[in-house]
Amino acid sequence: MKKRNLSTTMRAVLFDGELKFVADYPVPELQPGWALIKIKYTGICKTDMEILMGYAGFNGVLGHEFIGIVESCDNPAWIGRRVTGEINLACGRCEWCKKGLGRHCPNRTVLGIQGHDGCMADYCVLPVANLIEIPDSVDDHRAILIEPLSAACEILEQIAFEGSERVVVLGDGRLGTLCAWALSTRVNDITMIGHHKDKLDLASWGRLKTVLSTSEVKPGATGSAAGINDAMSLCRSRGTIVLKSTIASQGDLNLAPIVVKEISVMGSRCGRFSDGLNMIQIHRDMPLERLITAKYPIEDALEAFDRATRHDAMKVLLVM
Amino acid sequence: MKKRNLSTTMRAVLFDGELKFVADYPVPELQPGWALIKIKYTGICKTDMEILMGYAGFNGVLGHEFIGIVESCDNPAWIGRRVTGEINLACGRCEWCKKGLGRHCPNRTVLGIQGHDGCMADYCVLPVANLIEIPDSVDDHRAILIEPLSAACEILEQIAFEGSERVVVLGDGRLGTLCAWALSTRVNDITMIGHHKDKLDLASWGRLKTVLSTSEVKPGATGSAAGINDAMSLCRSRGTIVLKSTIASQGDLNLAPIVVKEISVMGSRCGRFSDGLNMIQIHRDMPLERLITAKYPIEDALEAFDRATRHDAMKVLLVM
Repeated sequence: MKKRNLSTTMRAVLFDGELKFVADYPVPELQPGWALIKIKYTGICKTDMEILMGYAGFNGVLGHEFIGIVESCDNPAWIGRRVTGEINLACGRCEWCKKGLGRHCPNRTVLGIQGHDGCMADYCVLPVANLIEIPDSVDDHRAILIEPLSAACEILEQIAFEGSERVVVLGDGRLGTLCAWALSTRVNDITMIGHHKDKLDLASWGRLKTVLSTSEVKPGATGSAAGINDAMSLCRSRGTIVLKSTIASQGDLNLAPIVVKEISVMGSRCGRFSDGLNMIQIHRDMPLERLITAKYPIEDALEAFDRATRHDAMKVLLVM
Repeated sequence: MKKRNLSTTMRAVLFDGELKFVADYPVPELQPGWALIKIKYTGICKTDMEILMGYAGFNGVLGHEFIGIVESCDNPAWIGRRVTGEINLACGRCEWCKKGLGRHCPNRTVLGIQGHDGCMADYCVLPVANLIEIPDSVDDHRAILIEPLSAACEILEQIAFEGSERVVVLGDGRLGTLCAWALSTRVNDITMIGHHKDKLDLASWGRLKTVLSTSEVKPGATGSAAGINDAMSLCRSRGTIVLKSTIASQGDLNLAPIVVKEISVMGSRCGRFSDGLNMIQIHRDMPLERLITAKYPIEDALEAFDRATRHDAMKVLLVM
């Protein structure tokens, strides 16, 4: 095993009840079959902000979107490769893992979300099985979006679109835009409804239509009771609502329309990174770079998180 | 058209902001292609009780579960036949109707629920297309359950069961029991969880297993936030929750588990009456009669509704 550099501490962004930047966090330990990755960029995701509010009860190094270079690994073929990685660390032995659905493994830990330190640091460790090499043709600012784009592609794995469906995407945020772009590669009639003209302009691509909602602006409303009520109202009988947001409902929710209209509500979470990477390579004109709002050095993580909570923010990056 | 008897008024159970029995309600008018049905039995359904609480904003004659005899009709072949009828009066022209899914017709009225007087009366009218004749081999006490049993069978139309699935039915009420019985004809491993030992004993049939819940008893809880939380917790990753209840959620509902576990929630409402009737005829040992809790003359409708709200009540009938 090639030795990594001699430092045993590193810079990291932690959550331990409060968000903090520390300069002397222990470098994670490498295990057989794992890789130590030197992080280049990491993205701030809505889930990170929800963790700050108590979601998943996570304490430790934040972050699950990254690109980096493999620095140490017992398989020398990986060393020096530019990679990103699947965030679910699956057991590899249960029925889910055997089906290739490690992201549902009940024994899993999750990078920066559940039981495994994340990537908002100089280094993180992941099993080699989680790594995916980024081809030279895909530059850093596109590659950093593989994780959320894969989550968008998950919808295409769950629903066999015929192409003639009418699709509406509620919300003009980061994930909404990526979902709309991914879906627009499969269906002709797709409309995004949002509350922010600037974000709708940013999302405008190809055949995607955008509509400015004139209803009251409720920030982050798509995961709330109001957003779900809008979806139930827009959805045709026997139609499907795909639920992407893990935001807890705010307010009372009456699910009777789901029964009366026989709507299917489909929860959708992470996707296969290979699907996200494929989409980036096939749709080279998908304007992913537009979603990079700002870049901050890791030392300015608190300022970066603050920037990421503003309504015009799409993807805010930390640079190591 | 054969003339019906000369009386122009009838007994009826009304809701006009309050529940009442009246002896002089106008007999409904027959239209071309419709049948006037003399009602024999009508069942009290949870939906009727929800209408009393304001559901669907309905005013008029209640009731949508019935058996009766066709008294007048412009097609003489129907006269004298023992029938029940599909509750959705569809337009017959829209895209839903053309697909045979009139129960989703956006222009529909619904017997005793929406824009069309119901069957808790001496007479009701329905289009002949809604009628289904009850064969002599199916007696009244089984036939009166065709409507809710068809609603249970709707799950079998929506989900293609392989037979190897593990199914849990939450709740030991009327519809829960019928759903459990219908599902147990398709899957091997099926368990009903309920709060009432007497109702679980009543539900016990064939391979259906019953489990008495030791958690706090919350009457009518399966449609509430607590019931949906139980379902999300019991459901495996990528599993399906079928939602049958139109009860509004009580309390705050956090749908995040649907996203994290990628659960599908499927709303399920009315079914084809032919499916319910088929099931009755194929499964002659299905103990439908057990579900008849009590019978009341129509004049005692208020007492019957009172009886139907008690926790040990399954199906309460009105007799004309």
